[in-house]
Amino acid sequence: MKTNIPLAGWTQALTRSALQDMLVASTQPGLISFALGLPAAELFPTGDFAAAVARVLATDPHALQYGPPLRHLKSQIVGLMALRGVSCREEQVFLTTGAQQGLNLLVRLLLEPRGAVLLEERSYTGFQQVLQPYQPQTIRVSTDPDEGMDVGAVEQALSRGPRPALLYAVTDGHNPLGVSMSLEHRERLAALAGRHGLPVIEDDPYGFLCYEPAPLPPLRAFEERWVFYVGTFSKILAPAVRTGWVVVPEELVPLLANVKEASDIDMAPLSQRAVSSYLETGALPAHLTALRDEYRRRRDAMLDALERHFPDEARWRKPTSGLFIWVEVPDGVDLRRLWREAIEVARVAFIPGQAFDVASGQSPGNGLRLNFSNSTPAQIEEGIASLGRMLKRHLSSVSALPTRA
Amino acid sequence: MKTNIPLAGWTQALTRSALQDMLVASTQPGLISFALGLPAAELFPTGDFAAAVARVLATDPHALQYGPPLRHLKSQIVGLMALRGVSCREEQVFLTTGAQQGLNLLVRLLLEPRGAVLLEERSYTGFQQVLQPYQPQTIRVSTDPDEGMDVGAVEQALSRGPRPALLYAVTDGHNPLGVSMSLEHRERLAALAGRHGLPVIEDDPYGFLCYEPAPLPPLRAFEERWVFYVGTFSKILAPAVRTGWVVVPEELVPLLANVKEASDIDMAPLSQRAVSSYLETGALPAHLTALRDEYRRRRDAMLDALERHFPDEARWRKPTSGLFIWVEVPDGVDLRRLWREAIEVARVAFIPGQAFDVASGQSPGNGLRLNFSNSTPAQIEEGIASLGRMLKRHLSSVSALPTRA
Repeated sequence: MKTNIPLAGWTQALTRSALQDMLVASTQPGLISFALGLPAAELFPTGDFAAAVARVLATDPHALQYGPPLRHLKSQIVGLMALRGVSCREEQVFLTTGAQQGLNLLVRLLLEPRGAVLLEERSYTGFQQVLQPYQPQTIRVSTDPDEGMDVGAVEQALSRGPRPALLYAVTDGHNPLGVSMSLEHRERLAALAGRHGLPVIEDDPYGFLCYEPAPLPPLRAFEERWVFYVGTFSKILAPAVRTGWVVVPEELVPLLANVKEASDIDMAPLSQRAVSSYLETGALPAHLTALRDEYRRRRDAMLDALERHFPDEARWRKPTSGLFIWVEVPDGVDLRRLWREAIEVARVAFIPGQAFDVASGQSPGNGLRLNFSNSTPAQIEEGIASLGRMLKRHLSSVSALPTRA
Repeated sequence: MKTNIPLAGWTQALTRSALQDMLVASTQPGLISFALGLPAAELFPTGDFAAAVARVLATDPHALQYGPPLRHLKSQIVGLMALRGVSCREEQVFLTTGAQQGLNLLVRLLLEPRGAVLLEERSYTGFQQVLQPYQPQTIRVSTDPDEGMDVGAVEQALSRGPRPALLYAVTDGHNPLGVSMSLEHRERLAALAGRHGLPVIEDDPYGFLCYEPAPLPPLRAFEERWVFYVGTFSKILAPAVRTGWVVVPEELVPLLANVKEASDIDMAPLSQRAVSSYLETGALPAHLTALRDEYRRRRDAMLDALERHFPDEARWRKPTSGLFIWVEVPDGVDLRRLWREAIEVARVAFIPGQAFDVASGQSPGNGLRLNFSNSTPAQIEEGIASLGRMLKRHLSSVSALPTRA
């Protein structure tokens, strides 16, 4: 970007990312989009939430005034965390403007400029954005296609070098891979955090969206002191309420409060009160069951369509949590070309896996991230059939190449 | 704070401030509080706003979904800015989670760690908090008791030294002084910004709360390129809607979007849609007139009570904008002691001026910041009478001291 305004040096790296362009392209009307990680708007409990806002505004004279973060919501979150198998106290809960703010505030407390962070080779781009102004040294560990973060690689990295300022982990519904970590590796990663005194930021946006009967508890259930848990109502209620939380050792709460004050004032916005009032009605458990049932149906529709329409060379796993299926294709497939053709000709959107590569390094494997939560089973069938046809054409041109040479 | 968690170095300075303790003490029930900068909750247009939220949730299927910042609200803000005498375009407007976030994001773009900032010796504490993690070099200029920032001192500082990364200015309703800058000095400061290529962050929370018939335009009206304007609905609508804006050169908007994405996702929360729907009804101008009338009445009640109850040694000015009156008292008065006695005995709260001193330096003059917006005229009469009696006792003990020695 050209400007004569003298900006901080790190902004030099702020070119508009290919991912941003892809996201914009993916929101064209008329497209079947598997690109964004959107929850299904038609499943939001809009009427119940509207009633909650109306109730709060009609009965609470402080609803629109400055005031401290809503204590009652913290106690309700303690109850939610118990459903995730996590035992915590109200004094360990800090309320945020969504999960992204939780990540941002924790990094502010933990990371020095040019400090070291431990990341997988494939990671949520929003966390990579949080790190950008710090220009950190990245210690990259491999991503296991079955489980996400390779815990063995973490152990090696920690035994080799100095302790990084933090490690970032998504244990359920990995973004972009869709996979979840085994119980054994959760226990091992949590133990590593404790043994090394390593702050782990555990980002758990999809923890309540598990489609199997027995969800595994997050890392925080195994390590109370060194795992900082980040939760959100964005995927289980609605994103536009901008309400999330973190669970941290109690002594960090006043520090987070200070950093949040500087960020956007640490107070109870109207949405905290409305979310709390909604939870108070007891409607959430039934809503979560309905959400899981519908997302499971959409996941299964996509798995079934992949089976019927995608070429034999493609590989995928059945995700147990979250919103994504990762489809691996042979290295020869040019996913950027496939993406452009998908948008322009087939009118189907997805995100090529390279968009999630950490620190400009290239990760092994070539994959498509497909979202299944925000399309109906009929759209899924149509979109996957169309993508499958394209992919088969691309593969036959790839395999044709050597004979031409 | 004691912890074995390895935090970033700057957090060492994060002791709980005396100001925070004072703010907590000032919210005890039964206190007459002139301490906080709260708007009057009984004046919020709660019914109209509740209707706006209900309308949005009933009619907009995207109201709770992720989605881009609300373009229509930007065009409404262009109209509001015109009322402040500022001409700008929609493409220069960026929506924030309140003014505090505007300040925070702009500093993120402009300031390097340990970079230089130009501040008055007395400044809004929330901006000082934004700066803390950067551990900046502070270039302090004096605060003129009649006008706020001493523009002559700014000119000298700029001619002497290298250009700082930014200058922070509040031209209307200075916090804590309550005063506003003259037209001549606005023009001169804006010209300095342009001549030196100096980014000026103009924080204008009280610009729409001017109690005189002809409000002066903000710096942004005189300098389009180098003044970055920060506005908010917190004081003219309600704080808990957490909606504000900045007006900047167009090329900075995508950079702000990137920094906001990392902070809390750059999207339209429900509140942006509700604020926009409220504005669409055309109710704001009449609401602003009612607000100004009532705040003017409260300001005048406080000025009148000060005249009758405060000792001759105290000095104050009539603020034309904002929420505060600054009362200067002789240097011998121990304001921390007076504050404690006021809270504990007289049951009246205020903030001692030292709380606003920049960079731990001491500023000349000894003052009390008194808020007039959040008390009724009857409470103002009672609280000022009580404070006046205490102050007279303190002054007589101060003047008695030399004879004892």
